[in-house]
Amino acid sequence: MIKHEDTSQTSIIERATDYTPPRSLSHWFIGRPLQTADAPHQTIGKAIGLAVFASDALSSTAYATQEIMVILAAAGTMAFGYVFPISLAIVALMTIVTISYEQTIHAYPGGGGAYIVARDNLGEAPAQIAGAALLTDYILTVAVSIAAGVAQITSAYPELFPYRVWMSVIAVFLIMLINLRGVKESGMAFSIPTYFFIVMLCVTVGTGLIRYFTGTLGVVVDPPHLEVESVVAAITPFLLLHAFSSGTAALTGIEAISNGITAFKEPRSHNAGITLIWMAVILATLFLSISFLANHIGAIPSESETVISQLGRTVFGGRGIAYLMVISATTVILIMAANTAFADFPRLSALAAADGFLPRQLTFRGSRLVYSNGIITLSIIASILIIIFKASVSLLIPLYAIGVFLSFTLSQTGMARRWWKIGHLKQGQEIVEQGSTLKYEPGWKYKMLINGFGALCTAVVMVIFAATKFREGAWVVLIIIPLLVKIFFTIHHHYQDLASNLSLDTFSGLPARQTRHRVILPVSAIHQGALVALRYAKLLSDDVTVVHVSLDPAETEKVQKRWKRWGEGTRLVILDSPYRLFIEPLLAYIEDIVESSQPNETMTIIVPQFIPSKRWHYALHLRTADVLRQELLSKPGVVVTDIPYHVSKKKK
Amino acid sequence: MIKHEDTSQTSIIERATDYTPPRSLSHWFIGRPLQTADAPHQTIGKAIGLAVFASDALSSTAYATQEIMVILAAAGTMAFGYVFPISLAIVALMTIVTISYEQTIHAYPGGGGAYIVARDNLGEAPAQIAGAALLTDYILTVAVSIAAGVAQITSAYPELFPYRVWMSVIAVFLIMLINLRGVKESGMAFSIPTYFFIVMLCVTVGTGLIRYFTGTLGVVVDPPHLEVESVVAAITPFLLLHAFSSGTAALTGIEAISNGITAFKEPRSHNAGITLIWMAVILATLFLSISFLANHIGAIPSESETVISQLGRTVFGGRGIAYLMVISATTVILIMAANTAFADFPRLSALAAADGFLPRQLTFRGSRLVYSNGIITLSIIASILIIIFKASVSLLIPLYAIGVFLSFTLSQTGMARRWWKIGHLKQGQEIVEQGSTLKYEPGWKYKMLINGFGALCTAVVMVIFAATKFREGAWVVLIIIPLLVKIFFTIHHHYQDLASNLSLDTFSGLPARQTRHRVILPVSAIHQGALVALRYAKLLSDDVTVVHVSLDPAETEKVQKRWKRWGEGTRLVILDSPYRLFIEPLLAYIEDIVESSQPNETMTIIVPQFIPSKRWHYALHLRTADVLRQELLSKPGVVVTDIPYHVSKKKK
Repeated sequence: MIKHEDTSQTSIIERATDYTPPRSLSHWFIGRPLQTADAPHQTIGKAIGLAVFASDALSSTAYATQEIMVILAAAGTMAFGYVFPISLAIVALMTIVTISYEQTIHAYPGGGGAYIVARDNLGEAPAQIAGAALLTDYILTVAVSIAAGVAQITSAYPELFPYRVWMSVIAVFLIMLINLRGVKESGMAFSIPTYFFIVMLCVTVGTGLIRYFTGTLGVVVDPPHLEVESVVAAITPFLLLHAFSSGTAALTGIEAISNGITAFKEPRSHNAGITLIWMAVILATLFLSISFLANHIGAIPSESETVISQLGRTVFGGRGIAYLMVISATTVILIMAANTAFADFPRLSALAAADGFLPRQLTFRGSRLVYSNGIITLSIIASILIIIFKASVSLLIPLYAIGVFLSFTLSQTGMARRWWKIGHLKQGQEIVEQGSTLKYEPGWKYKMLINGFGALCTAVVMVIFAATKFREGAWVVLIIIPLLVKIFFTIHHHYQDLASNLSLDTFSGLPARQTRHRVILPVSAIHQGALVALRYAKLLSDDVTVVHVSLDPAETEKVQKRWKRWGEGTRLVILDSPYRLFIEPLLAYIEDIVESSQPNETMTIIVPQFIPSKRWHYALHLRTADVLRQELLSKPGVVVTDIPYHVSKKKK
Repeated sequence: MIKHEDTSQTSIIERATDYTPPRSLSHWFIGRPLQTADAPHQTIGKAIGLAVFASDALSSTAYATQEIMVILAAAGTMAFGYVFPISLAIVALMTIVTISYEQTIHAYPGGGGAYIVARDNLGEAPAQIAGAALLTDYILTVAVSIAAGVAQITSAYPELFPYRVWMSVIAVFLIMLINLRGVKESGMAFSIPTYFFIVMLCVTVGTGLIRYFTGTLGVVVDPPHLEVESVVAAITPFLLLHAFSSGTAALTGIEAISNGITAFKEPRSHNAGITLIWMAVILATLFLSISFLANHIGAIPSESETVISQLGRTVFGGRGIAYLMVISATTVILIMAANTAFADFPRLSALAAADGFLPRQLTFRGSRLVYSNGIITLSIIASILIIIFKASVSLLIPLYAIGVFLSFTLSQTGMARRWWKIGHLKQGQEIVEQGSTLKYEPGWKYKMLINGFGALCTAVVMVIFAATKFREGAWVVLIIIPLLVKIFFTIHHHYQDLASNLSLDTFSGLPARQTRHRVILPVSAIHQGALVALRYAKLLSDDVTVVHVSLDPAETEKVQKRWKRWGEGTRLVILDSPYRLFIEPLLAYIEDIVESSQPNETMTIIVPQFIPSKRWHYALHLRTADVLRQELLSKPGVVVTDIPYHVSKKKK
């Protein structure tokens, strides 16, 4: 398969033919391997793009209204009148953010997530803050969406409640498998349920609104019991802001498209921008309609039955086929919303890894051209969160959304900064900055204003969120994000040190040739294995010293006698070890030589190692080579080699 | 410290000065290291010998009577009349075994445990059966004695009952530490409690017997409730044999001295023999007295209060100082009885390891001249048993004693065989067999009869034990012992194969010098680390091939460009890897060369490895060298070396 060199070589650089991996079990799970050259074809159109990137944003309509009501419930059912006004405020915020991100998509056709925009316009530290915020949030998106989806199932089938944690973990695992297959196929797999959800919700709120305006809607039959504190709170501005904060969960996921522009078919920016606007319109319509109807049918926020479920059975008059279709569509979209994070987390971590802020392993693309390490990392952390928080949405929600608004703010601040720079260029002037070309644009003031206003709004919302949800868990995120940023920079410094250590730019070549290559060969007895090792040692250098640590005088006597017969005149040093230690005297001897050696000397320690035919046989031997390698790792100029000696069952 | 070679060497064999280990924390726990030359001084006299080797045998008086009563209880309190006759039968058996072992001690002054006697006189298989039986039993001795000792404490202080398992494990750990210090110091540490126990028990049974014969003893006040089946069984021969089997636990430990003769001061056999007889007399006296009194005071066998405790408070008229001294002496002797096993298990396993039936590591003596690996192995297995059986004596007892009687039988059969051989020598003739000298002795017939009768008796008892206790757990031992024997022989065959592979006896020397030494150096990029590795590679051979696996065309381009500048004319092979795999194409390339190479060729794979200054940095790099070494271990003629490249914080 590989044409390796023959004697008539013409160049010092050769190429060998390609390596094709053999078939294996993993192909059955994630599909046959794809070549690197296959990459550009793996892009998607607007319709599939909406399914892949919108499921997170759209699915939040399933719980955003309910989350507003949960907070207002503290002031009694009277307070539910504020649900619709608060929803209107959230939709206004959504509009600002959408317009702001639409500008980003056109400015960054190569993918303009908060990380890239902050990096290119604000610098390294804000970029890493944005990165930490986004990665945290992607993980929470998976945990919250899966937990909320499973909660739908368990509210319809309460007997499954005890299994909710394992149901959630299995769901994470299945989505992981789908994503390890690659983005296009997962797009196909996800578009049917996404569109099914959009259709079912439109039918539900459409029917609901018609019945409301024709006066036939009525109220929820047998609503769940309202779970409130014994003392009813007053309707304070804090309470309203708190409810607003909870409702802003509806905005999570809106930035997904700007991160994933490169997944779209050309013209990328155009397709991605249109998809973003579609998504925002559908999201706003569904969210407002649900909030409006939920208030009018007297829905009660509850752990035992979701608001969507109450709405469904009121609109369709009971738990019939239509109701079950709404519930199952909601369940599926929630579970699949996690897929958005599966599209973005690996992409962002690969980006940060390529910049040297995360382990390099995250940049490797697996056999199906996806960032397999990132996908697997996300699955594991999200599963751990689900297990810790027992798949409870209400425990997870306060951790959620701070990261989103932090990244919104950084991204839009970065965009505003960019417009300001563009505005201060001369007409026709072009500058290349951080790899992207900036060129004067006449409308820069207007665009800067939009992004700047967006940044201001999202910053205010972030502060409100942190303040109102601090005690419920937001403090955890306020610790984790700075900690992650610290870790990112620690990793970065390591890679920078490494690069400066390895750099050839200011390198003047290695010192003159080694003056001496010593080879040390420790032996416990003189046998065929020792002779094979001696043969190898003499192949490496003429300067070979064989060392025997004497634990037992009788054995040492035998070694000395045999050495005269078999030693080929090689020098043998016997180290007496009255305390019966083996490794320590050897190390002391080696260290002694290292200390007294010249800088240009190299030393190789050759350790004979039996390679038995069966694995358990290792238990019957000392792993001397491993111990020596570990101990001598820190000594410059010392190399440890184990020379394998194969032990066959019967010697021929 | 080490005078290593200078240029004016006169001989090819040198000796370096001794290595003394530096002080470390472990010295505080187990004492300063001892030199091998210190070994012969570590012997003990008769008085300390009794303390070290008799604690196991003597401590069984604390539970043997009770174990007989537990079985008889099935037939109601009426059956307790059989306790004394059964005890007499056991003492008769004890006498036979003692006389038989006294002969062994004189015949084997170098240590005559069942293993050695069986090996020298019956052959390999019986020796391994004896070894398996003894090792199993030593482990059980530790588990049973510790559990019984802790049971004494928890019967005096029931509030400690929930902590019994951890109390037992801690006790095992403490005894392990004492034993890691070495036999003489542990002898000192153990003689006070052993003699305290002997004195306290003598005082107790003495007072008890005087009060019985003066008619002032009375019966147990407020005895524990008798725990029996609802249906009272008949007194059948099976029941009596079953009770007898349980009582034979009194014989366990009687062989300890014959295993440990070398620990005695000279004249060894004489001292050891006298110690054995002392021990048997004390044991028989205490056991008979306790059985006699227990029956007469109406003691009831119970989990909540031991028979010794009932005896103590009846004799001393309540739970006063004298009672507490008896209980504490019993507790301590039981816990310390485990020490006998700690003296013998490591010695026997080192013996079996030296014969190649157990891993060689067991023959190494630690810094204090004791077989540290054996001591630690025993502690771990015994602790696991204690945890599994929840420190319950009644669950452990049925596993116990089969092994003892099996080894008694083999040992005495071996002795009988030996006398037979001696009897068939001519007067004055001497033969050397298995390293020991056999010489005609006139009284051989009488001695053969004694050992033969002992063997018969113990064989019968073993069968009775196995039959009566089979369902309670004896079956486990009947599976484990053959299994161990199988494992011993499997290990033995491995070492035999290895020895025949390595042997130089029929070896005609290695084939002619290697025709070719190829060196392969995989690099991912051309940097200082790669150049250091290249320099090393060229030190080893002129036949160096550098291999780059191409994952990213841009990186490969850079590698090719830099190679022209830095490659020193060395051949570079680029392996295209369209599926982005790294290890697999490299392995395929290497295997391809190996398959087409001549038998006399050697190949060394050099893998550059970063050695970062901090341990966690490893997480940021691939462990390519480790993976390659693992994969190529099975290829003959291939050596994998990792050349360390040290990454400092700031490059000078």
